Amino acid sequence: MGNDKKPDEFEIIARYFAPLAAAEPGALGLGDDAALLQPPPGRQLVVTTDSLIAGVHFPTDEDASDIAARLIGVNLSDLAAMGAKGLGYLMTTAWPHDISKAWIAAFAKGLARAQSAHEIYLLGGDTVATNGPLSLSLTAIGTIPHGCALRRNGARHGDGIYVSGRIGDAGVGLRILRDELPGGDDINRREAVDRYRRPLPRLLLGRALRGVASACIDISDGLVADLGHLATQSDVCMRIELARLPLSPLADLIGGALAAATAGDDYELLFTAPAKDEAGVMAAAKDARVPVTRIGQVMAGVGVEVLDDAGQSLTLDRPGYRHF
Amino acid sequence: MGNDKKPDEFEIIARYFAPLAAAEPGALGLGDDAALLQPPPGRQLVVTTDSLIAGVHFPTDEDASDIAARLIGVNLSDLAAMGAKGLGYLMTTAWPHDISKAWIAAFAKGLARAQSAHEIYLLGGDTVATNGPLSLSLTAIGTIPHGCALRRNGARHGDGIYVSGRIGDAGVGLRILRDELPGGDDINRREAVDRYRRPLPRLLLGRALRGVASACIDISDGLVADLGHLATQSDVCMRIELARLPLSPLADLIGGALAAATAGDDYELLFTAPAKDEAGVMAAAKDARVPVTRIGQVMAGVGVEVLDDAGQSLTLDRPGYRHF
Repeated sequence: MGNDKKPDEFEIIARYFAPLAAAEPGALGLGDDAALLQPPPGRQLVVTTDSLIAGVHFPTDEDASDIAARLIGVNLSDLAAMGAKGLGYLMTTAWPHDISKAWIAAFAKGLARAQSAHEIYLLGGDTVATNGPLSLSLTAIGTIPHGCALRRNGARHGDGIYVSGRIGDAGVGLRILRDELPGGDDINRREAVDRYRRPLPRLLLGRALRGVASACIDISDGLVADLGHLATQSDVCMRIELARLPLSPLADLIGGALAAATAGDDYELLFTAPAKDEAGVMAAAKDARVPVTRIGQVMAGVGVEVLDDAGQSLTLDRPGYRHF
Repeated sequence: MGNDKKPDEFEIIARYFAPLAAAEPGALGLGDDAALLQPPPGRQLVVTTDSLIAGVHFPTDEDASDIAARLIGVNLSDLAAMGAKGLGYLMTTAWPHDISKAWIAAFAKGLARAQSAHEIYLLGGDTVATNGPLSLSLTAIGTIPHGCALRRNGARHGDGIYVSGRIGDAGVGLRILRDELPGGDDINRREAVDRYRRPLPRLLLGRALRGVASACIDISDGLVADLGHLATQSDVCMRIELARLPLSPLADLIGGALAAATAGDDYELLFTAPAKDEAGVMAAAKDARVPVTRIGQVMAGVGVEVLDDAGQSLTLDRPGYRHF
């Protein structure tokens, strides 16, 4: 596990990280140069990587165990979007010099909780010191039956467009954390913050959508921006109706449906399926116990078309998404 | 490839990084949430991760293509130490806001050169902006026939201890780069700097040592410190003789054999093999066209024992290694 030498690096690995690898023989107890992996017969491996930097991807005063939950959550969300099951992860951590053992202990506890929720294990990593902000990078590895991966490029004219869960909670939560958003019911406020802090990767839904969804992505940049990625990869136009979006109960606080659709960090699945497979979509949603809503239709053309409540097409000058 | 949104992130990926992934179908053109991997039949995957941070692991004014070579080199060196063959890599890059396209172009060119030298491909990654120093993190994936991985824990009492190449070049090179080291022949100086900047992962040697070496590690922390890791994992004592070390021709400039043995960054293979397999070791060295030198013997006990020219055991108070 890495080459760096703070005086107590090996102690930290032995005490906090080796237990996270103990149940996975391929991790070799973090004692070797690399980990060994054997995909189950007939399965492919799915690999993805995402970084989080303090002050960019989460507030600098965020709780260590929430940061761990977010790090695991956003990476597993990428596996969910491919229809994969999680297997394990490698992690690199760049810690500021003043990091405390208590912080590391809380971080490791958050990792342990996420591991247990998702049946994954630490496979290896690297620990370095930095003069810059806390930076975390994770490579998640999953498995999928050969040829069954959901892709971004399969949406076809006439397919329905669907989204899981609710849109806008994380965007509301982030603005509450930044003290920019008074108002709203306390329970809803807490839930919104929670959705921002601890994304729920939709792994069960992703797997249930194998053979049903024609294209799939997870919403990180924002519903509209991620629809744009599906549109580009599939070479189609994605037309959605704002009135159909399953909104956060607090979406009005940030400006309503369009704001929610461009806020990002939802980590819901956004996918398409042929019209004839609508029953299959709903059965998958039921299996995975996640609500799924039809929000539009794939058209010929390019880009994303957003219809307002009156059915008029909106012009978007800024579909993207800025981080915290 | 990642979720971040500098205005031109997608352009940068399309222009500089997608070409690095073009030859590997599993990378899906970097257009999806994750990459797909199918290990060849009978093979395991080997995965490792290492980070580099500007000002910690390389000088801040280092050339972009050299940084790319170093990033790939140190990670492939971990695969070499397991006896694996490289397959591909995922990379996360955290760039300061003032990074230029010229820098990124040079960096991508360095990656392309390393890819071509080692027959590996970019599989995916994440690109984020940071207020801190340039930070790079790479996860390298390799393959190995099932059950053939070299480990750190197989050294046994009586085994010979061997090292590839020369020790101390990188340590000399680093001090030359820091303007701390006058003297020495110009050609040797240039070669030492080159060895620091562009580590040569000993992949061919690692593969040739399968079934021959009883334990193996690559030298990153320093020969003595990495011997310590082998000793700990194998539960033996590693006794080496300083007089036997294959030294950099400029080792005297930094204080001789002991300084070279604790300087680090050599990225040579350090391994053990039963005495009866000495011919096998030399045959592997010949196959891989890398000199290999016997530097000591595995003993019962713990830790590392370093004998000086008179055969006296030295006491080391600081076997470890500090980064740049």
